[in-house]
Amino acid sequence: MNTMRMRDTVRRALDEDLGRGDITTEALIPAGVVTRAEIISRSHGVLAGMEAASNAYKMLDPDVVVEPLVPEGGRLKPGDRLALITGDTRAVLTAERVALNFLQRLSGIASVTAKVVDAVKDLPVKIVDTRKTTPGLRMLEKYAVSVGGGFNHRFGLDDAVLIKENHLRAAGGVLKAVETVRRRVGPLVKIEVETENLDEVSQALSAGADIIMLDNMDPETMKEAVSLVGRRALVEASGNITPANVVEAAAAGVDFISLGWLTHSAPPLDLTQLLVA
Amino acid sequence: MNTMRMRDTVRRALDEDLGRGDITTEALIPAGVVTRAEIISRSHGVLAGMEAASNAYKMLDPDVVVEPLVPEGGRLKPGDRLALITGDTRAVLTAERVALNFLQRLSGIASVTAKVVDAVKDLPVKIVDTRKTTPGLRMLEKYAVSVGGGFNHRFGLDDAVLIKENHLRAAGGVLKAVETVRRRVGPLVKIEVETENLDEVSQALSAGADIIMLDNMDPETMKEAVSLVGRRALVEASGNITPANVVEAAAAGVDFISLGWLTHSAPPLDLTQLLVA
Amino acid sequence: MNTMRMRDTVRRALDEDLGRGDITTEALIPAGVVTRAEIISRSHGVLAGMEAASNAYKMLDPDVVVEPLVPEGGRLKPGDRLALITGDTRAVLTAERVALNFLQRLSGIASVTAKVVDAVKDLPVKIVDTRKTTPGLRMLEKYAVSVGGGFNHRFGLDDAVLIKENHLRAAGGVLKAVETVRRRVGPLVKIEVETENLDEVSQALSAGADIIMLDNMDPETMKEAVSLVGRRALVEASGNITPANVVEAAAAGVDFISLGWLTHSAPPLDLTQLLVA
Amino acid sequence: MNTMRMRDTVRRALDEDLGRGDITTEALIPAGVVTRAEIISRSHGVLAGMEAASNAYKMLDPDVVVEPLVPEGGRLKPGDRLALITGDTRAVLTAERVALNFLQRLSGIASVTAKVVDAVKDLPVKIVDTRKTTPGLRMLEKYAVSVGGGFNHRFGLDDAVLIKENHLRAAGGVLKAVETVRRRVGPLVKIEVETENLDEVSQALSAGADIIMLDNMDPETMKEAVSLVGRRALVEASGNITPANVVEAAAAGVDFISLGWLTHSAPPLDLTQLLVA
Amino acid sequence: MNTMRMRDTVRRALDEDLGRGDITTEALIPAGVVTRAEIISRSHGVLAGMEAASNAYKMLDPDVVVEPLVPEGGRLKPGDRLALITGDTRAVLTAERVALNFLQRLSGIASVTAKVVDAVKDLPVKIVDTRKTTPGLRMLEKYAVSVGGGFNHRFGLDDAVLIKENHLRAAGGVLKAVETVRRRVGPLVKIEVETENLDEVSQALSAGADIIMLDNMDPETMKEAVSLVGRRALVEASGNITPANVVEAAAAGVDFISLGWLTHSAPPLDLTQLLVA
Amino acid sequence: MNTMRMRDTVRRALDEDLGRGDITTEALIPAGVVTRAEIISRSHGVLAGMEAASNAYKMLDPDVVVEPLVPEGGRLKPGDRLALITGDTRAVLTAERVALNFLQRLSGIASVTAKVVDAVKDLPVKIVDTRKTTPGLRMLEKYAVSVGGGFNHRFGLDDAVLIKENHLRAAGGVLKAVETVRRRVGPLVKIEVETENLDEVSQALSAGADIIMLDNMDPETMKEAVSLVGRRALVEASGNITPANVVEAAAAGVDFISLGWLTHSAPPLDLTQLLVA
Repeated sequence: MNTMRMRDTVRRALDEDLGRGDITTEALIPAGVVTRAEIISRSHGVLAGMEAASNAYKMLDPDVVVEPLVPEGGRLKPGDRLALITGDTRAVLTAERVALNFLQRLSGIASVTAKVVDAVKDLPVKIVDTRKTTPGLRMLEKYAVSVGGGFNHRFGLDDAVLIKENHLRAAGGVLKAVETVRRRVGPLVKIEVETENLDEVSQALSAGADIIMLDNMDPETMKEAVSLVGRRALVEASGNITPANVVEAAAAGVDFISLGWLTHSAPPLDLTQLLVA
Repeated sequence: MNTMRMRDTVRRALDEDLGRGDITTEALIPAGVVTRAEIISRSHGVLAGMEAASNAYKMLDPDVVVEPLVPEGGRLKPGDRLALITGDTRAVLTAERVALNFLQRLSGIASVTAKVVDAVKDLPVKIVDTRKTTPGLRMLEKYAVSVGGGFNHRFGLDDAVLIKENHLRAAGGVLKAVETVRRRVGPLVKIEVETENLDEVSQALSAGADIIMLDNMDPETMKEAVSLVGRRALVEASGNITPANVVEAAAAGVDFISLGWLTHSAPPLDLTQLLVA
Repeated sequence: MNTMRMRDTVRRALDEDLGRGDITTEALIPAGVVTRAEIISRSHGVLAGMEAASNAYKMLDPDVVVEPLVPEGGRLKPGDRLALITGDTRAVLTAERVALNFLQRLSGIASVTAKVVDAVKDLPVKIVDTRKTTPGLRMLEKYAVSVGGGFNHRFGLDDAVLIKENHLRAAGGVLKAVETVRRRVGPLVKIEVETENLDEVSQALSAGADIIMLDNMDPETMKEAVSLVGRRALVEASGNITPANVVEAAAAGVDFISLGWLTHSAPPLDLTQLLVA
Repeated sequence: MNTMRMRDTVRRALDEDLGRGDITTEALIPAGVVTRAEIISRSHGVLAGMEAASNAYKMLDPDVVVEPLVPEGGRLKPGDRLALITGDTRAVLTAERVALNFLQRLSGIASVTAKVVDAVKDLPVKIVDTRKTTPGLRMLEKYAVSVGGGFNHRFGLDDAVLIKENHLRAAGGVLKAVETVRRRVGPLVKIEVETENLDEVSQALSAGADIIMLDNMDPETMKEAVSLVGRRALVEASGNITPANVVEAAAAGVDFISLGWLTHSAPPLDLTQLLVA
Repeated sequence: MNTMRMRDTVRRALDEDLGRGDITTEALIPAGVVTRAEIISRSHGVLAGMEAASNAYKMLDPDVVVEPLVPEGGRLKPGDRLALITGDTRAVLTAERVALNFLQRLSGIASVTAKVVDAVKDLPVKIVDTRKTTPGLRMLEKYAVSVGGGFNHRFGLDDAVLIKENHLRAAGGVLKAVETVRRRVGPLVKIEVETENLDEVSQALSAGADIIMLDNMDPETMKEAVSLVGRRALVEASGNITPANVVEAAAAGVDFISLGWLTHSAPPLDLTQLLVA
Repeated sequence: MNTMRMRDTVRRALDEDLGRGDITTEALIPAGVVTRAEIISRSHGVLAGMEAASNAYKMLDPDVVVEPLVPEGGRLKPGDRLALITGDTRAVLTAERVALNFLQRLSGIASVTAKVVDAVKDLPVKIVDTRKTTPGLRMLEKYAVSVGGGFNHRFGLDDAVLIKENHLRAAGGVLKAVETVRRRVGPLVKIEVETENLDEVSQALSAGADIIMLDNMDPETMKEAVSLVGRRALVEASGNITPANVVEAAAAGVDFISLGWLTHSAPPLDLTQLLVA
């Protein structure tokens, strides 16, 4: 992770929440008073995002101490204490919502990822994310996927080639598109192509694609595609896959399965902060 | 809305996705070719966010024309075309994911808000949001709530006073806290206080709070609280309210009901972009 | 106050002054030499802005120690030492002008505010600021007003409704405007309306405005307006009020009085920095 | 002027005022309605800052047309119309305060500068500004000084050498300081030194300073200093000079006179915006 | 290329050069005068960077028209006119140096790249760049390499794995390092490993590296390595390769050759701007 | 130097290299392991830029300790150790390339400057830089020139007047241009004018230019120009001067000589980082 960007994201979130300042806390809490608070889980899940949360407090007061009680990726159940926070009461109260907003969202993603990974754990398949992330939070959300045991697909439009349906419409078919791209990109770039049917799978294969995406295919067709490819390329299942149908896709023998669902639909983990002193 | 901030949010999201550039599109699509695309709905819902989406295309090429076919707040059903996009093929393909990520998230929030508003439409109650928003997207998410027919609670820690449980622990009770705040804040600031029971409701009332929040109370207690307040302050129901229990809360006679659920758990609306020429 | 924004404002001011660097100090003062300096008042007034000033030194060298000798809001007379600064000579000399520019301006505002507040201290009225602040310094200038004993009116266009004359021209009269706004804004927003005469005061009142601004009215009319309102709303006197006529306005019985003069015309407090070792 | 920085300053001021958006205007004024407004002077003075003001409107809506009726530097009297503004009513109302804040401050500075320049117009002396400017507005305030007929002293710590009293304390006297600096800085940099008495003037002269500042000297001593220098260097009068004593300083025969007063104490020019359609 | 980032880089360079403004041009050239200028080559080379240069003018005045006379990648000889620039004289003169600084540097890189590519054009080898680029200009410099006919190695630490000597020291050998990485990174990431001798080449191969870098090997050893790999992985030659020894490396049969020299040592192309009207 | 800007430049360079993070190091090196590394010279030269390099490590982990073994401006030979770096292995490896890119480029500039300065050390002439610097790195590159014993010409278009050939074309000749500028700029600004022949030198002299640049003149003409000026102004030699012809120019008796070559063509110093523990 680029920690400078992570801190910048936290700083923006704090600024968004503070606006011109926390008028409630400034009116009620004298400067210089110290408190102690706990972050507590109210549900089952997997922890992710403590470093971002910790930064929220420290940006307001570098002397706040955040002591994690559960490691990143650790399992949570209702009532578990995640962290102790000790420091200036104003900072602890003012940063609370932002810290929790990060922790709840990222732990939510890690939690659902862990469930999906667990569901297919007996099959030689990897669970990966997509670019259907929240604008501005991609790096952190993809980090949460990895904390939950998933792997990362492309981080952006620049770190691998993925030729999608709209590219094919504009570029004139799978074979031509893959060959054009292969001539143009550097030797460290992998090339993936989205296919709709077995004919496109064949074209992608003969054009030398590194990865072939099976887009919205039924399990039967996926199996045929996997067999057709015969390990000459990696095969990815994609398209409206949810925890409900992921095992079926895995059973088709694909190498990895991508779920936009992990990042755009994961419910937040229910957490709370309580002053204890 | 502060449109300069909205554009800045879109620009960051684009930059996050592009990184050093869209290598697939640059390799496949010649510069200067023009295309035409449609954004199409695959589900039922309420449209929100077209201006943000439109900006995504125009930031890559100011000559791209985005023609909305459904007004902001308009109802969508599967197959509806939301907008036509005409312009440089590279810009149309490169901006696609970012434009859709904004549209899907904001329309998702507007859609669930509209459902909740509709569920209580026969009662004199307002549906409002919370600060449990996605870090970095609060202004846009609160805008989406208003598009769906909801109202906005505080935008941040600076635009109204909300004395919460942790403040009370640090400040020594409802009565003292409200009075302290009233002496300190300016005449344009409303004061709301979170209460856990009827005794705290009484204290808040006699201290002159403008708004009394009933936090996680059962419907019976809420009714008693509303009666106790007797219109001398506004009353807000809050705490784990979802579409499933919102009508019950509304029936207790409160003035408004806040749901973090609207922003942290709304599923995205399913939309897609298709090249048509 | 949002301290992150305060620090950002100080950082920009330093950058504006340094440009590519302090060529005088770099040529004359060896790196690593330590000095001691004092900030001294040359006039009577109220201190405000020491945290901003202190940050100016520390941004150039975090090891500089700034020891305030007078608390924020404390009274100053000529010859009083405000603070001791100990640290790297280069940092102490390079930050001097920026530190003083903040201190002089903010203390100037606090000082005139304190005088105005004092002038009306026997009447139940609050002195408030306006949005006629220096571009880029609003948060700090409003902070200085509060240090001087004043209260803050709106921080911006987003934290309360104020319907002004130009809005009324565009929106069709007081009654219609207030009612329209009341239907649209959330429950935590107060509504103020600017009135030119008693008829508009009546309309504002019956439309349910929270606050009625009496704009440029003579004292007699203000008294009638106050009587007409009868405590059913707060009443604000506004428009070309200066220390010379503020008591007159206060005597009319209004709840608060706003003076753009506090921020746009306060003379700076005369301060200087002197090396003592 | 660096127009990119000017626009950035305006953008920040707008953002500061808008926060999350102009809730009054959005609630009252429908999108897409066009209006016409005038900016009118209520006092005598010199206009400065129309480009900054104009940018405030155009940043909210590039289609707003701002038609200046008085040129930059033109004389104003009460009732004069400075500019016509035509465009989207929301943009015209939302930008109003920021546009006026820039115009009033910059015109205020240009106006007092013009008065001071006029007071010494029969003497061969230049009026210059100082670094006692408002944090964040230096470039614009110095521009306003030039519009009023003044000249600019240093823009920052980097564009000329000015050896001040505190430098001398740290560096060991005038002679040594000037010689040290001369060895170190490049050939395009002028060297000025602050002097407290005629002995220091002599030292500065023999060390080859380009400019000698007479700091807080009485008129008699200034005359002697001018005579002592004998045109071998430029001579600057400085220190607590105001419109009240500037002629006296000019009569001493100095080449230029610097007044912090121009930027830190100029009262704003009284201007207003009125919708006319 | 991410054109938003390119424009941002140009804007920073302009700001760096303008500081508080171009005082020469503002003093000499009246506002509103239009001129015509040419950019002319004084040497042989390949053109790159016209879009960046063009942006420099347009950021100062969007009405300046830059008409390229040679396409990106086109060959230049002394006396060739590259572009006509028509517009506000101030903008044309003020942007000149920044525009030329970009053009000269990027064309310099494209020119040397073209020479190196030409030198090995009869062999099946690709010329690639490295991360030894100028801080802040990597995207543009790598673009210039591609204009010159080269290919891009990694853009940063995030878009492919490259296990270097220092990693191996810390991680315990080639075999272990490659296997560890393969378990951890996602399916779209290629893995390259730097090797110092044939034994490490063997380890890299058996661990399944996608690309094997031969670091500073002599031609004989490179040939053995290529033969050992037998097309089971791509082979890259690297380390102190210059135009003088690139053909020798190519003849060893490697798939691609990386030269830091292309970006850190390319001399700028000699270009000038001349007013013609 | 403005150290805030220097740190900002380093931060941008790190961000450019990291992108979304260093995937190799994160996969291979556990968090929390400490290492020790050395930076070693592979060539002869002069060290410059250690503070920038040091910042690269510390921005990733403030606990990294960088211990310079050679002072800024110190001489290097192959095998010399420049600095020890102790701290978190991840930070040491991830920052390596950025730290070296700064050190190599800046030391390269300091090294060639030192050579040129040495070549003319027996003549009373100063070596200065130009504005032909790398976009974004001007302040640092000019700093490197000063480390190598050179002096700085203008930092930008704002800190002195330089009337160049294109200005003269637009402004109508040397005499008129210099006089116009002298009337307009402030008293702390030096005026330099570029001349092509002795006639222009005469005009510049009689118009009172502070500095006269001899542009691309042959040594004979330069001597005549120096004699013509007769110390009434400073004289600068400029135009395609390289280490090869600088002595000839110096011998003509000019006061200073500017070389764009110092910054646009200095080869980087060859340095490397090695883990030692």
